[in-house]
Amino acid sequence: MKTAAICTVGDEILIGQIVDTNSSAIAVELNKIGVKVCRMVSISDDGTDIKQSIKSLLHNFDIVIITGGLGPTKDDITKKALAELSGSCGDTFHEGQMQIIERILAHRGIEMSDINRAQAVVPDTCEVMLNRKGTAPGMIFRFPSTAFAHCPVLYSLPGVPYEAIGLLPDVMADIRSHFALDSIYHKTITTYGIAESSLAKMIGPWEDALPADMHLAYLPNPLIGVRLRLSIYGGDRDEEIKRIDREFAKVMPIIGDAVYGEGDDTLQSVIARKLVQNGRTLSVAESCTGGFLASLFTAMPGASKYFYGSVTSYDNSVKENILNVPIETIAEHGAVSSECAEAMALGVCKALNTDFAVSTTGIAGPDGGSEDKPVGTVWVAVAYPDAEHPGKTAVLSRMLRFNNDRSTNIQRFAGSALNLLRSVLCEVLRA
Amino acid sequence: MKTAAICTVGDEILIGQIVDTNSSAIAVELNKIGVKVCRMVSISDDGTDIKQSIKSLLHNFDIVIITGGLGPTKDDITKKALAELSGSCGDTFHEGQMQIIERILAHRGIEMSDINRAQAVVPDTCEVMLNRKGTAPGMIFRFPSTAFAHCPVLYSLPGVPYEAIGLLPDVMADIRSHFALDSIYHKTITTYGIAESSLAKMIGPWEDALPADMHLAYLPNPLIGVRLRLSIYGGDRDEEIKRIDREFAKVMPIIGDAVYGEGDDTLQSVIARKLVQNGRTLSVAESCTGGFLASLFTAMPGASKYFYGSVTSYDNSVKENILNVPIETIAEHGAVSSECAEAMALGVCKALNTDFAVSTTGIAGPDGGSEDKPVGTVWVAVAYPDAEHPGKTAVLSRMLRFNNDRSTNIQRFAGSALNLLRSVLCEVLRA
Repeated sequence: MKTAAICTVGDEILIGQIVDTNSSAIAVELNKIGVKVCRMVSISDDGTDIKQSIKSLLHNFDIVIITGGLGPTKDDITKKALAELSGSCGDTFHEGQMQIIERILAHRGIEMSDINRAQAVVPDTCEVMLNRKGTAPGMIFRFPSTAFAHCPVLYSLPGVPYEAIGLLPDVMADIRSHFALDSIYHKTITTYGIAESSLAKMIGPWEDALPADMHLAYLPNPLIGVRLRLSIYGGDRDEEIKRIDREFAKVMPIIGDAVYGEGDDTLQSVIARKLVQNGRTLSVAESCTGGFLASLFTAMPGASKYFYGSVTSYDNSVKENILNVPIETIAEHGAVSSECAEAMALGVCKALNTDFAVSTTGIAGPDGGSEDKPVGTVWVAVAYPDAEHPGKTAVLSRMLRFNNDRSTNIQRFAGSALNLLRSVLCEVLRA
Repeated sequence: MKTAAICTVGDEILIGQIVDTNSSAIAVELNKIGVKVCRMVSISDDGTDIKQSIKSLLHNFDIVIITGGLGPTKDDITKKALAELSGSCGDTFHEGQMQIIERILAHRGIEMSDINRAQAVVPDTCEVMLNRKGTAPGMIFRFPSTAFAHCPVLYSLPGVPYEAIGLLPDVMADIRSHFALDSIYHKTITTYGIAESSLAKMIGPWEDALPADMHLAYLPNPLIGVRLRLSIYGGDRDEEIKRIDREFAKVMPIIGDAVYGEGDDTLQSVIARKLVQNGRTLSVAESCTGGFLASLFTAMPGASKYFYGSVTSYDNSVKENILNVPIETIAEHGAVSSECAEAMALGVCKALNTDFAVSTTGIAGPDGGSEDKPVGTVWVAVAYPDAEHPGKTAVLSRMLRFNNDRSTNIQRFAGSALNLLRSVLCEVLRA
């Protein structure tokens, strides 16, 4: 199996100013074509460090992809290092990239400078991949076996994420045509509501009986739940897919209702799909999650197809005046109660005139709470069309308890609300 | 200056399923105490790879921080590799971490399993850092000079971000007590509304005249704005503080109103402080930011002191029915308009009965928009007590245009709304 390393160049990553998202975007694409990513490295904008690190990566891996270190103010440290490493005898001027640079500068109303012009100049040892979204071209360097005992290929991409990602189709096409690749297959199922350790115990016998060439990974996330991923390297693609599907088919009945999707599914994406498919609408009432639950829906493009809106009723006066939660409900049961959560869900469903509604009311901490209702307690409720009384709205609620910091509690509260909504939608909407 | 490497263990990062955010969080803290991060590496869950990579990092750097590879289902590959590397003669059971594991499981209503119990078992060569937020303890391994020609220290942290971040104060305290670190002093001021390149031009002469031992860093963030950090390594602490304050005092009048705080201040924390100090209240009306703006306030403890709530009026019916935006306003000017933004702010201010209100309406993309109002256009508005007509509410709005992906646009929209609110509060509330 061909191996790859991804290397990001730039002090801004090493001082923690920027989170590196390029590497994971590149890894996803390499994985898809069956290249195994064995290493990700971030190094500084220092010429010596770049040369040493790249050399060591070229020794150890078939494919090396570098991002960054190519901007107009970077002094082209990376380009110089790559020229030296590849034994370049000089630079060449790339007319095609120059035309793109001219067009981009004209569009932004910026005058051409020597710095801009220099970006179209590349070492004579590389092949250029045109960067249509920015000024720095992508470069391919193919190293002979005399240099590294094998023939590694290096791809150099700009650091700006949308420019780097824009060049990935060219990179992947080149890798596929240059190397004889083994196949690889991953599949992920997503679960919510069972802790990682309980899940491990529950499916332990199945895991132990997995074929030796199949690898299982647990990927927990407070909002998404625990994802289970099966991988096989090598073999025939169709056959692998069937084998993984067969294994998942065995384990799904063991896990039961906690399985809610696969691949990149999230609770909110599954809910959104179900609502859109059935032409139904949703509203949200939040207390402790304070807007976060609504923002999970609106973060996804196309939310306006089913999401009408939300009310964050942080102050009790908002619960009463906008959501019509009766004063007595709060006085008798408190704002963190089944009764209040249900009244909030019913209230927002009616006020915003939607088919479904979901609500949260809890204590995220760090302060507040009582012995009965400690920090980490949440009530979530869902309002839905009552099948037995057409035209009426039914409601149900659940209490959950977590033990995290404020920010994680808010995520877990939102996840719990989404999970209850998901299970109600599964009941009510059979499509 | 002491050097550090940060290493993340886990196939989920190498296949691109998870973006590594731990490394940048750790890098920020190391930077603050004057440790230079020279390398970030991601490696797989493979024992041999872990041992080889860690060994090479320990050879080259004073401090190595590992995250990941410690979960209850990870087979403790990392723990085994570290035991071997450190020449451990066996395992020991850590009573303190066991008590935490018991408490966490009891709180979640999960039965103790052998897998859970094994998490309190660590190599006898390590010192435990108690993980109060999760089951896997942090570990410190101190290597003798006989092994690496210098005496590196390795810190092993769990991979779950809030658990890893929860242990960072202990890690930093240990580094400070173990190593003779050069003293370092940083001070940061926060600005909003001037792009990094414009700011650099504006304060260029001041920057060029800075004392040679003072280092300036620009730290841009779509939500916080551009932070300017001055650092000095070495020297006497009191003297350094005075010198940095003197330099900031020179540059603040040049930047003017765009400076809004210092240190860890954010627009929302500055707004919250101002409202609480003056006993005033706030509500929020959101369209394109969809709950995100409200969630920024409620993410901070104590929000109930000033934050009454919010309405996400994603669908126009919610703008009309809950926020009382006149139908004609939307019909004549569109939902993305000065008129609509102002009506939303006034509407939520009245409906939720608060002193101030802030609103957003725009097009976050990727779809939608027109030639007049392309994706990235937002109107933000603020409603505030009218000083000239006591008892009345005044309103003002601003249009801004950005050119980013949906998620960054939402952040920039929210930042713009916060910045307008901040400047209104500065005018209206003199305290």
